[in-house]
Amino acid sequence: MTEGRFLSLEGGEGAGKSTQARALVSALAARGVHAIVTREPGGSEGAEAIRGLLMQGEATRWSAHSEALLFAAARADHVEKVIRPAIGAGHWVICDRYVDSTRAYQGAAGGVDDAAILALHAFGARGLLPDRTYYLALPPSEGAARAAKRDGGGDRFAMRGEDFHAAVARAFDGFAAAEPARYRRIDATLPAEAVTRAIVNDLADWLA
Amino acid sequence: MTEGRFLSLEGGEGAGKSTQARALVSALAARGVHAIVTREPGGSEGAEAIRGLLMQGEATRWSAHSEALLFAAARADHVEKVIRPAIGAGHWVICDRYVDSTRAYQGAAGGVDDAAILALHAFGARGLLPDRTYYLALPPSEGAARAAKRDGGGDRFAMRGEDFHAAVARAFDGFAAAEPARYRRIDATLPAEAVTRAIVNDLADWLA
Ligand SMILES: Nc1ncnc2c1ncn2[C@@H]1O[C@H](COP(=O)(O)OP(=O)(O)O)[C@@H](O)[C@H]1O
Ligand SMILES: Nc1ncnc2c1ncn2[C@@H]1O[C@H](COP(=O)(O)OP(=O)(O)O)[C@@H](O)[C@H]1O
Ligand SMILES: [Mg+2]
Ligand SMILES: [Mg+2]
Repeated sequence: MTEGRFLSLEGGEGAGKSTQARALVSALAARGVHAIVTREPGGSEGAEAIRGLLMQGEATRWSAHSEALLFAAARADHVEKVIRPAIGAGHWVICDRYVDSTRAYQGAAGGVDDAAILALHAFGARGLLPDRTYYLALPPSEGAARAAKRDGGGDRFAMRGEDFHAAVARAFDGFAAAEPARYRRIDATLPAEAVTRAIVNDLADWLA
Repeated sequence: MTEGRFLSLEGGEGAGKSTQARALVSALAARGVHAIVTREPGGSEGAEAIRGLLMQGEATRWSAHSEALLFAAARADHVEKVIRPAIGAGHWVICDRYVDSTRAYQGAAGGVDDAAILALHAFGARGLLPDRTYYLALPPSEGAARAAKRDGGGDRFAMRGEDFHAAVARAFDGFAAAEPARYRRIDATLPAEAVTRAIVNDLADWLA
């Protein structure tokens, strides 16, 4: 049995997280590693129900504090019901957004204290962090253009203004700088195949 | 303008909380005080949506930690959108269950640390506590019998066993003993009218 690993993909809307999650499953399968893709908010039955509350409605439907609590509740369920069991069974888990998105959106851009978000994470998900986090760095305007081409519309977070998305990008830059052991900053302006190659190269040690 | 007051009603299922909430509105109106009744989980549009997730489904749908986070999210919304504005406008607020129910059900009976629940409450609802809490004390078996007569069925919490409900009752006894300034323990085996009288008598100072 291989040792299960937990990877997260982070970055703004349109950065290529969902594209890379799919590409990584194939790239890992070609190397004999079984990976599951999951996403946040959501990823388990309960968390997907909470996702509905988080993604629909007016941008101002919830305060940043209520939002942070809902994300923590969803993540607690997701970790308990899906992520820990999969890792425990020796699978790799690729998570499309995870706690750093809460730190960036509700924290840095939404005004909630980072230490408080990490305390909620310690309480709900027992503080589980990914073995590695790939931050797909892309100017927000470019991500918005890609996302608009993809689906036209946008959820409660896509609706937010330029300043909000700039704060999110700065937050991810800061996390990557502060946690070099866990974080890899990847240039997401590159073609999708080049981004996948960069991630797989970085995983070489664990794939050997 | 009168000074707004915040009262909560606590106790097990069938203790008479909803009955007393309605009776208090009339008793207060007769004394020139406008009171609104609200309830938890729920009480605001967002919190009622969260209530749906909490009250439906299997008893084991959520872990006690996820549940505590969902209650805190609902309460944060309820306090921000309904309770604080009403008190600020000089109304009295009568809340049918509040944070002490989370401390009793998810805390004492569910195994979540009381300090952690209070920390979530400090984060979400900025720690707002009632001016006074009336604990309607009734043996759980009697409450269950009343509730069964009332509505036959039961929600995710009513389904739990005898030990669970005994732990809830012990927890409320403990809260009342630990916080005598906020808490009043009322004998809920008395007829409903006598319970209402006991509460109104206790409020005499604020009604003078
Ligand atoms: N490296 C890339 N270069 C150009 N377009 C990309 C790249 N990666 C993804 N895309 C396209 O951009 C859009 C957004 O990608 P997606 O993976 O859905 O982003 P995210 O999940 O981060 O919001 C999709 O239409 C996708 O095909
Ligand atoms: N003091 C009382 N004595 C006897 N029955 C009561 C009393 N208070 C309420 N009841 C009845 O018991 C049932 C449960 O009361 P309810 O107010 O719905 O309890 P709770 O809201 O605490 O679950 C209702 O049918 C109600 O009419
Ligand atoms: Mg995506
Ligand atoms: Mg009731």
